[in-house]
Amino acid sequence: MKAKITAFSAFTAAVLLTVSARAQQGLVKMTPVNFSQVQINDAFWSPRINTVTTVTIPVCINQTEVITPRIRNFEKVARKQGEKHEGIYYDDSDVYKALEAIAYSLKNHPDPKLEAKADEWIDKIAAAQLPDGYLNTYYTLSGIDKRWTDMEKHEDYNAGHLIEAAVAYYNTTGKRKLLDVAMRVADNIDATFKQKDLHWVSGHEEIELALVKLYKATGKSKYLDLADWYLQQRGHGYGKGAIWTNSDMGEKYCQDDVPVKDQKQIEGHAVRAMYLYTGAADVGAAKNDPGYLTSMNHVWEDVVFRNMYITGGIGSSGSNEGFTTDFDLPNSSAYCETCASVGMVIWNERMNLLTGNAKYVDILEKSLYNGALDGLSLSGDRFFYGNPLASANNYQRSEWFGTACCPSNIARLVESLGDYIYASSANDIWVNLFVGSSTTIPLKNGKVELKQETGYPWNGQIKLTIGSSSAGKFPLHVRIPGWANNNPASGTTYRFTDKSDSTVNLSLNGKPVKYTLDNGYAVISSNWKKGDVLTLNLPMPVRMVAATDSIRANRNKVALQRGPLIYCVEQLNDAGTKQSFIIPDNVAFSTSFNKDLLNGIVTIKANVPVIKPSEDGKSVKTEQGEITAIPYYSWANRGHSQMDVWLPAKVSAVSLKASKDDN
Amino acid sequence: MKAKITAFSAFTAAVLLTVSARAQQGLVKMTPVNFSQVQINDAFWSPRINTVTTVTIPVCINQTEVITPRIRNFEKVARKQGEKHEGIYYDDSDVYKALEAIAYSLKNHPDPKLEAKADEWIDKIAAAQLPDGYLNTYYTLSGIDKRWTDMEKHEDYNAGHLIEAAVAYYNTTGKRKLLDVAMRVADNIDATFKQKDLHWVSGHEEIELALVKLYKATGKSKYLDLADWYLQQRGHGYGKGAIWTNSDMGEKYCQDDVPVKDQKQIEGHAVRAMYLYTGAADVGAAKNDPGYLTSMNHVWEDVVFRNMYITGGIGSSGSNEGFTTDFDLPNSSAYCETCASVGMVIWNERMNLLTGNAKYVDILEKSLYNGALDGLSLSGDRFFYGNPLASANNYQRSEWFGTACCPSNIARLVESLGDYIYASSANDIWVNLFVGSSTTIPLKNGKVELKQETGYPWNGQIKLTIGSSSAGKFPLHVRIPGWANNNPASGTTYRFTDKSDSTVNLSLNGKPVKYTLDNGYAVISSNWKKGDVLTLNLPMPVRMVAATDSIRANRNKVALQRGPLIYCVEQLNDAGTKQSFIIPDNVAFSTSFNKDLLNGIVTIKANVPVIKPSEDGKSVKTEQGEITAIPYYSWANRGHSQMDVWLPAKVSAVSLKASKDDN
Repeated sequence: MKAKITAFSAFTAAVLLTVSARAQQGLVKMTPVNFSQVQINDAFWSPRINTVTTVTIPVCINQTEVITPRIRNFEKVARKQGEKHEGIYYDDSDVYKALEAIAYSLKNHPDPKLEAKADEWIDKIAAAQLPDGYLNTYYTLSGIDKRWTDMEKHEDYNAGHLIEAAVAYYNTTGKRKLLDVAMRVADNIDATFKQKDLHWVSGHEEIELALVKLYKATGKSKYLDLADWYLQQRGHGYGKGAIWTNSDMGEKYCQDDVPVKDQKQIEGHAVRAMYLYTGAADVGAAKNDPGYLTSMNHVWEDVVFRNMYITGGIGSSGSNEGFTTDFDLPNSSAYCETCASVGMVIWNERMNLLTGNAKYVDILEKSLYNGALDGLSLSGDRFFYGNPLASANNYQRSEWFGTACCPSNIARLVESLGDYIYASSANDIWVNLFVGSSTTIPLKNGKVELKQETGYPWNGQIKLTIGSSSAGKFPLHVRIPGWANNNPASGTTYRFTDKSDSTVNLSLNGKPVKYTLDNGYAVISSNWKKGDVLTLNLPMPVRMVAATDSIRANRNKVALQRGPLIYCVEQLNDAGTKQSFIIPDNVAFSTSFNKDLLNGIVTIKANVPVIKPSEDGKSVKTEQGEITAIPYYSWANRGHSQMDVWLPAKVSAVSLKASKDDN
Repeated sequence: MKAKITAFSAFTAAVLLTVSARAQQGLVKMTPVNFSQVQINDAFWSPRINTVTTVTIPVCINQTEVITPRIRNFEKVARKQGEKHEGIYYDDSDVYKALEAIAYSLKNHPDPKLEAKADEWIDKIAAAQLPDGYLNTYYTLSGIDKRWTDMEKHEDYNAGHLIEAAVAYYNTTGKRKLLDVAMRVADNIDATFKQKDLHWVSGHEEIELALVKLYKATGKSKYLDLADWYLQQRGHGYGKGAIWTNSDMGEKYCQDDVPVKDQKQIEGHAVRAMYLYTGAADVGAAKNDPGYLTSMNHVWEDVVFRNMYITGGIGSSGSNEGFTTDFDLPNSSAYCETCASVGMVIWNERMNLLTGNAKYVDILEKSLYNGALDGLSLSGDRFFYGNPLASANNYQRSEWFGTACCPSNIARLVESLGDYIYASSANDIWVNLFVGSSTTIPLKNGKVELKQETGYPWNGQIKLTIGSSSAGKFPLHVRIPGWANNNPASGTTYRFTDKSDSTVNLSLNGKPVKYTLDNGYAVISSNWKKGDVLTLNLPMPVRMVAATDSIRANRNKVALQRGPLIYCVEQLNDAGTKQSFIIPDNVAFSTSFNKDLLNGIVTIKANVPVIKPSEDGKSVKTEQGEITAIPYYSWANRGHSQMDVWLPAKVSAVSLKASKDDN
């Protein structure tokens, strides 16, 4: 990565001041309300969660158990008949991630048959654990003497996902079997390295955040210490000899060139980076250590200001599944792995909890509704691994992947959506996402029942009703999205070209209410009582967005955004030819909700100059034509299509195609 | 390859009838006048031959000897110190092909220093021959016990090129050393397989045509028999277990699925196919065996009618370096290996000699002036391996290649150009190519001195002067190119869209002369005497060519041809944007010779509708603009460029680019 802009100046300094002041009283500003305490009843999300439960998770189970040999590898270990490992060395993780998704699903929709399936898998996993606690089907079947010799072979990545699954399943069912397996796995790693004062760098971060979950589930601080130990291994050359240091990838590929607390730039593999920073935020929060937050604020700005797509997708290059140079954000070759957008959701959640700043939720929301959600078909059984921002009619969703990290990742995210809606501290409640739901939040002085009703993201009306409260007076923080204040998402490389008049409106029991704006939240301190209704109105005009000129691929183009949703123009055309048009500066948009289209979406239509061949093909003509934009997440659900997020607002060249097969 | 059109019908039947009638009296219609008997003095070709001598051959020598370990492998064998082979198993062949080019060059331009270099190489080659005659640095250095175990490892391909070099060097210098080496190599193969009645299929054809050359140079029929044996090995499953039968390539890849005499369709690797059919034509001619000609006429039609580019290039696919399905001729991804065009030249020469039909020279000329010549930069030190018919500004010539077959192949072709100009039989002389030159041809009744002067290919005036003749009355056959009779090249998939009035004009000593047209030649029987001047005038209007609609990539497009040259539009533009234009049906072309442009070329200019953005980029406008077309062979000599051979005549879609980096 080339030299970076170094003057973060005032903004960064202010953040650091806040951080160090806060460190006195504990870093963490708030804790999330767990999804198990949130009942979602939402026109947009409930059907999606239902699809994941009824379609996506069964697909994951079938792929994991029947079509691919992922479960069979565990059975082979238990049989001890010298059978060979099949598949790739990280395939165990797909079993664990499917299990984690199942655990969340069981909380949302109890299902004894599904729980029996999970128990059956857990028995097989437990039977594959070696007496010393080690659990990895690849090395156990391929040569146990080789274990812990190659840092890139994902042994701790697999362990991390095992731990996440174990904690999730324990939280849902109270059953300890997998949790005990996971503890013995972690204990084995601790004994193998940390207790012997040996060094080891994880080739694919993940176990750090998992160990913090294990610490929280068990209360055992050794797991938190082990997570911190993992973070501290990086950037000291301990990975020398590891496969990535000998390849083109180098140490930057897995963020091992600089100690975590000294990192300032985003680099390398996008998913690895997201998992690393999520783990670092968790450890920093749990250990009250501001060092991780300092470095992550630098890195976060580097991601969001210079290396993020407007969809919240990250990692522009397929060759390293990660970052390249600043502002190198091509559209049709954009990699934007689904897992990296999932990573953006979890990292930005942690940053929000640590800082109390809504700008992280702005990015979380952007990645969630666009880059991540795009990874799952509306039918729930087709997936994107990469999520490009343009396609020349040749990009299609797949049933599964050889490296199958994405399907179960999007499944576990959607099933645990409830985690990201509310947060609280001793005296305060925060509303981060606008999802129809109800919850009960215990504050220091009493419980608060809260109900949210909304047509979001199709409209911006949000109604919050206090069901009951014995908490007395407390501040309720309601996020005012950056986009509602003419900021596409706080602190990004994108800007709205029109400053639509979109006054945010907040009223209490039908009357305008006084509020202060703090860290991106409207704060209403009131002696809340049963039946109080707080209404937030976020106007949703169609807005044209421009990118900074530094993003060369987007020069002279605009994107369309409405609410949190990025739109695209998808052209379904048997002839395989794309209609070409120019978006004028003064274009008028119209919107309407189409309940039968793509499971129900708001479309954006506009009349624009369309450039096309004359009837005889001997010249080119310009005429007005209608274009229809649909939410980005909903494309590629109707067969092959040409798709563009960024639309030409100014033309620098014209290219003519003589026939469909012109090349 | 999919099912083919089977009705060759009348045309094929007529050919077969002719062939079988001829077989009674010997198949061969004529023999070529060897290049060593032809002195070339030509404005177009002499500078090119000179560049190959002074630049290309030294580049080949430097690459072979200094930069890459090709010569060093021979030295290692001689040293017998257990050193390892470097490079690829077919690298020996590059040494031999460079040596063959040197041999031709020494004939054209005697050069004692260069001859000493050749002798030095020959000593090294001879020193690497094993006592039993086997000569192959790869197996000798990597494990001689493995020799002749893998049919794909090019052992006989290397041997074939050794033989060709040896014959060429012997013909030029009279020195026998390399010829003796080559004979022992061939004897070793004969003893290893044929004498033991063992089967062996060559994985890359080449040795068949080489063995016929060895037979002609030595008079030993065992080499002709061995060539025929090689041909007869194919198509009987003897290659089973060979690498290609176990890969995606299959037996079709090297034309091993059907016996050669039963082959009807072109398939597989293009260079392999060309070398095979050249060798088959040679064996058929030398053995008076019409069976090979029968099959080759089918295959030739399959190439020329359904699988050849307008440039004479063949093999559209890079993945098999060869043929795909009929009419699958994409432009920007066209592979069209330089060596395959060289193969088209030598195969079509053989077909012409066998049949006396000028249509084969039409194709030879097309491949020579376009597909093959394009492989060599004007400077002589840059090369194309593939020769696409369109480029989006990203295709450039290389200094050398890992697999370096093409540079020495084009070098040996250019140096031996004299081989393709004249042919004769006992009583007849044929003029095939229009190249300024002089030669003396012995006929049965006496010698004929012939001088050709021409400005071809820039104009169509050809002047043939009889220097002296003691042959009495004899028929002189002068080729009338297919394009001069509104046929782009006899029997191809392309047609001129305009039937330009281009009356061919032939006069003897200034007066119109009576002639008959036979097999594409104007035949003038005269009692030729010293000072007779035969003048041929081939008008050269610019002609628009269309492809059959079956070639989907060329639908609604035209190409420009003038004389034998295919033109292209090369757009040199720093902005990286292509000017888009439409060629109207009634477009008027102007031509002029530009002596300072690209070593002197005739350019074609036209005013056409150009479609481009308005100044503000907010709309698209059409205005008249001038385009300039240059000969295809001369593109990519001025840096990066956009290039197209096929130009839109009718537009089916318009695509807008917002910026240079739009993607």
